[in-house]
Amino acid sequence: MENIVDVSSAYEGIKCFITKTPLLSDDFIDKSLSCKVFFKCENFQKIHAFKVRGAINAVRKLPDKTLKLGIATHSSGNHGQAVALAARLFNTQSYVVMPENSPKTKIESVRWLGGKITFCAPTLEARESTLERIVSETGAHFIHPYNHPDVIEGQGTCAYEIFQHGIEPDYLLVPVGGGGLLSGTLLAALRYAPATKVIGCEPANADDALRSLRAGRLIPVDKPNTIADGLRTSLGELTFSIISKHVTDIFTVTESEILEAWRWITFHLKVIVEPSCAVPVAVLLKHKETFKHKCVAIILTGGNVDPDMLKLIL
Amino acid sequence: MENIVDVSSAYEGIKCFITKTPLLSDDFIDKSLSCKVFFKCENFQKIHAFKVRGAINAVRKLPDKTLKLGIATHSSGNHGQAVALAARLFNTQSYVVMPENSPKTKIESVRWLGGKITFCAPTLEARESTLERIVSETGAHFIHPYNHPDVIEGQGTCAYEIFQHGIEPDYLLVPVGGGGLLSGTLLAALRYAPATKVIGCEPANADDALRSLRAGRLIPVDKPNTIADGLRTSLGELTFSIISKHVTDIFTVTESEILEAWRWITFHLKVIVEPSCAVPVAVLLKHKETFKHKCVAIILTGGNVDPDMLKLIL
Repeated sequence: MENIVDVSSAYEGIKCFITKTPLLSDDFIDKSLSCKVFFKCENFQKIHAFKVRGAINAVRKLPDKTLKLGIATHSSGNHGQAVALAARLFNTQSYVVMPENSPKTKIESVRWLGGKITFCAPTLEARESTLERIVSETGAHFIHPYNHPDVIEGQGTCAYEIFQHGIEPDYLLVPVGGGGLLSGTLLAALRYAPATKVIGCEPANADDALRSLRAGRLIPVDKPNTIADGLRTSLGELTFSIISKHVTDIFTVTESEILEAWRWITFHLKVIVEPSCAVPVAVLLKHKETFKHKCVAIILTGGNVDPDMLKLIL
Repeated sequence: MENIVDVSSAYEGIKCFITKTPLLSDDFIDKSLSCKVFFKCENFQKIHAFKVRGAINAVRKLPDKTLKLGIATHSSGNHGQAVALAARLFNTQSYVVMPENSPKTKIESVRWLGGKITFCAPTLEARESTLERIVSETGAHFIHPYNHPDVIEGQGTCAYEIFQHGIEPDYLLVPVGGGGLLSGTLLAALRYAPATKVIGCEPANADDALRSLRAGRLIPVDKPNTIADGLRTSLGELTFSIISKHVTDIFTVTESEILEAWRWITFHLKVIVEPSCAVPVAVLLKHKETFKHKCVAIILTGGNVDPDMLKLIL
């Protein structure tokens, strides 16, 4: 993988389609934690999530004859929007299988971006069988949300942009769900910021990455009960192999730590972010001594949250 | 005024003390309004408000013998924090007179920045008499929140930064309270973006700028009842003279339009902003036909809002 993934050329390929998101910091945050923290704000990215990076990178590499039949995926969240946007940018049709209990804002967004939605029951089996049917009916090309080299390569461009700012942090804190972002980040750091320690941040209630790494084999999480909806998925074979080889550590946080960190980051940094973003922030707040007097970067992965959810932190 | 204000040299003087705030835009916003909108995000500025620009610019120009006696102001809000930060940057003491009903977050912030707070009754008379006493006791130099050439010059650097991005919008929408930001913006546009039409945006319930301009004389607003707490102040002599000479127009919006726009900008742009920022956004939403197919820039002035207030839009 290290040899086939080229984050720098992925960045050249996608940069005119994405937003160069700001890297924010805050005096109060730095002073109260005695460290320097940069927040890479992917909540300001296209479709308000980093997922466009991987989707666009995967779609741009498809040959024309594949592309013209359309692209397909299943997603309850940001990857569906990312695929719909990538399809629109490259003038093809997207087919998105969505569980019928997906957040309303995400359903509306996929539709607004021109995606054809097929609803299914909210189980992995229903998602996969429905997708299989759509693919066989249309000939559309399936783009996996994370277990895919081009997707991983694309997600790596986010950390690459941080390093391009001239910043090589001591620590880079990244949330882990399926592991696409963490894998891409690890491969980007390996090449462009080798001294940076990359930490995967996971809800304790969806700690499949930690368990899998300890066991040395994939242990998917069963019915994870976490507010961090973007991190309920489990690692895939490919992301597991990259993460287990390169990650410095995996830190977990409880649901109450996530909620507290979500409120803290919202009102100190003045951003609307998804609860998944609060997971690395909770790690920062929980391990103050580890990060003291260090330079830390955190990827805030997205901002798609229903207003009702936000009531939890007011 | 046009001759003594030099926004470009103010920018050179303050730029290493402030944050170069991002200029955000959003595909959905642009497509749904059929125009291109840039948001200058001063909610990510130092102390999370544009007010630092004017305060730092005024303080940096003081002679050492004045500076060493300290600086003073009265403020229920962001100007108090701005003065406290400016004082700390230039190694002097700040004295801030605050009405006893000021928002808790702003009181804490002034204190955290090293400001000495004196509380007073929440009336203009009490603020002014308390300030007068502090100034006579300490010899501190009073910095007015808006009716001051150096403050106006500093506030003009915000629009100047927009123009420095290479953007010369058709319209620039700016909220009006005391008029410092609008005056500075007008003087910056006059010199660096002469084709840009600058519109002052005001709550209908605090429409002293509109009334004063129509009458040709200052008509301060009496007990304004608006959620936009940053815009409850009335124009001063100096800001009135600049605004009446150069502004393209003043547009007003109702309280329900402000609330609706506040919710809209929070969830579409993914930012925490003060309700005052919703006033120009409400103008954008109300006058869609005026801005159709145009390039519009809006200054989002700050992000200091109590969590409780935010409940109003969830």
